[in-house]
Amino acid sequence: MLVGTRNPLNIGAAARAMSNFGFLRLRVVNPYDVGFREARSAMGAAPLLGSAEVCSSLAEAVADCSLVIGTTSIQHRELLHPIRRLDEGAALIRQQLTTAPVALLFGSEKFGLSNEELSHCHWLINIPTRDEHVSMNLGQAVAVALYELVRENKTIDAPELPELATAGDVERVTVSLLEALNISGYSTPATMAATEEKIRRLVHRMNLTTRDAELWLGILRQILWKLRSGQNESGRDARTD
Amino acid sequence: MLVGTRNPLNIGAAARAMSNFGFLRLRVVNPYDVGFREARSAMGAAPLLGSAEVCSSLAEAVADCSLVIGTTSIQHRELLHPIRRLDEGAALIRQQLTTAPVALLFGSEKFGLSNEELSHCHWLINIPTRDEHVSMNLGQAVAVALYELVRENKTIDAPELPELATAGDVERVTVSLLEALNISGYSTPATMAATEEKIRRLVHRMNLTTRDAELWLGILRQILWKLRSGQNESGRDARTD
Repeated sequence: MLVGTRNPLNIGAAARAMSNFGFLRLRVVNPYDVGFREARSAMGAAPLLGSAEVCSSLAEAVADCSLVIGTTSIQHRELLHPIRRLDEGAALIRQQLTTAPVALLFGSEKFGLSNEELSHCHWLINIPTRDEHVSMNLGQAVAVALYELVRENKTIDAPELPELATAGDVERVTVSLLEALNISGYSTPATMAATEEKIRRLVHRMNLTTRDAELWLGILRQILWKLRSGQNESGRDARTD
Repeated sequence: MLVGTRNPLNIGAAARAMSNFGFLRLRVVNPYDVGFREARSAMGAAPLLGSAEVCSSLAEAVADCSLVIGTTSIQHRELLHPIRRLDEGAALIRQQLTTAPVALLFGSEKFGLSNEELSHCHWLINIPTRDEHVSMNLGQAVAVALYELVRENKTIDAPELPELATAGDVERVTVSLLEALNISGYSTPATMAATEEKIRRLVHRMNLTTRDAELWLGILRQILWKLRSGQNESGRDARTD
C-alpha cells in the first residue's frame, strides 16, 4: 500500500517489485499524480497497475486488513510503536498472511509515514540500512521488503491464531471510544487531534480479535447510549481534566 | 560491479542501495553513458558515485577479487554454472568476505550477463522471483541482493519492552469498566456474574502495560463521572440489551 506517493515512477517500480515477488494487490492512497497508471518504469507491471485500487483515505484502504504494518527508516524516534527488524517482522507477517489480509504501508518519498498514518499501524518494520545513509529509494525498499517475505518460500507450521479484527473493526472501536470521551469532556478542542492519535494507538495495541472487537462495540454502544441520555436530560456540558 | 549498464539512473539507484547497505566500492565496466556520475536518482549516493572506478574490461575489473559471482534472472538455462538461490549464495559470499574481496556482477538491463561475462564467474545467484515475471529492475535487484548480505547484521535498538500492568491495575480497570456497564444497564442481575467473568477475561486479553492501564483508568473515570452525573439528573434507570 503506497500512501501519499509523489513520483509515478516510484509507483511503477513498486508495482514491478510486487509483480516479481507475487504480491498482486496494490492500493494507492492519495497519489500525488493521478496519472500513475502510466508509470513508465513498471516494465511488466502493467496488469498490476491497471488493477490498483485508489483510496482517498488510509482508513478506507486498510479497512479489510487485520494486520497493518508501517515501514520506517528511523530506528530511534518512533517510541510510540514497536519496531521490528525486517526479517523478524516478516516472519510474523507470513504467519498472519495464512489467515487474513495484511497491509504493508510505504509513506511518501520525502516524509515517510506521518504520525497520523502511523497511528493506523499495529507495529513497524525497519530495513537495516547503514546509520550514515538510512533513507532508501521507495521502489528499492518495496523490493527488499517483499523479497524478505518470500525468500524461502516455505510454509511455516504455525499454530492456528485466533482471527484478528479487521482494521475497519478496530477503527469502529476507536471512533466509538473517542465519541464517549468527547461526550465525557476528556479532551479540549486544542488537544483533540493528539488525543485521537493516542487513543487510536491504544486501541491498536489491544490486538483485538474479531470477537473482542464485537464485545467492545457492544460495550461502547451501551455506554454511549447512557452518556447521551444523561446529556440530554442534564443539558450540561461537563469537563474535567 | 555493473557490467554494460545502459541507463545512468540505474547506476545511480544501484549506488544508492550500495550506500544504504554499506557496500562502498563500485566498479562500472563499459558503462553506456559516461555521464553516469551525475545520475539523478542517487539521493545520498554522490560520494560513492564519485569514487566509482570505471574499467574497460571485466577481466580487469575482477582481477583482485577471489570470488566472482554473477546474477541471473533465469533459473533453468545456465547449466554451465552452478546456480544458488540468493539466500544460500549469500551465506557463502559472507564467509568469503571475511578473508578476501568478492565481486558481485550485474549485467545490462536488457540482456543480463553475456556468456562471455558469465565465464568469469565462479557461480551464479538467482533472486527467487515469480515464474510469470522473473526480470527485476536493476536497481531493485541490487538492493535485494545487498540486503540479503547484511540482513541480520544490525541489531535494532529495540525500544525496551513496556512494563506490564500489575494484576491490581488490571483489576481496577475491570472494576471500573463493570461499573460503567452496570450504570449503563449492560447486563441484568441474572446475567451479572457471567458478565463479570466475561469482562474480566476481556480485560486480561488486552495485555495492558502500566501506562495503558493508567490511560484506561483515566478514560473510565471520566466516563463514569459523566454517567453518574447524567443518572443523578435524570433519575432514570436505563436498560437495553
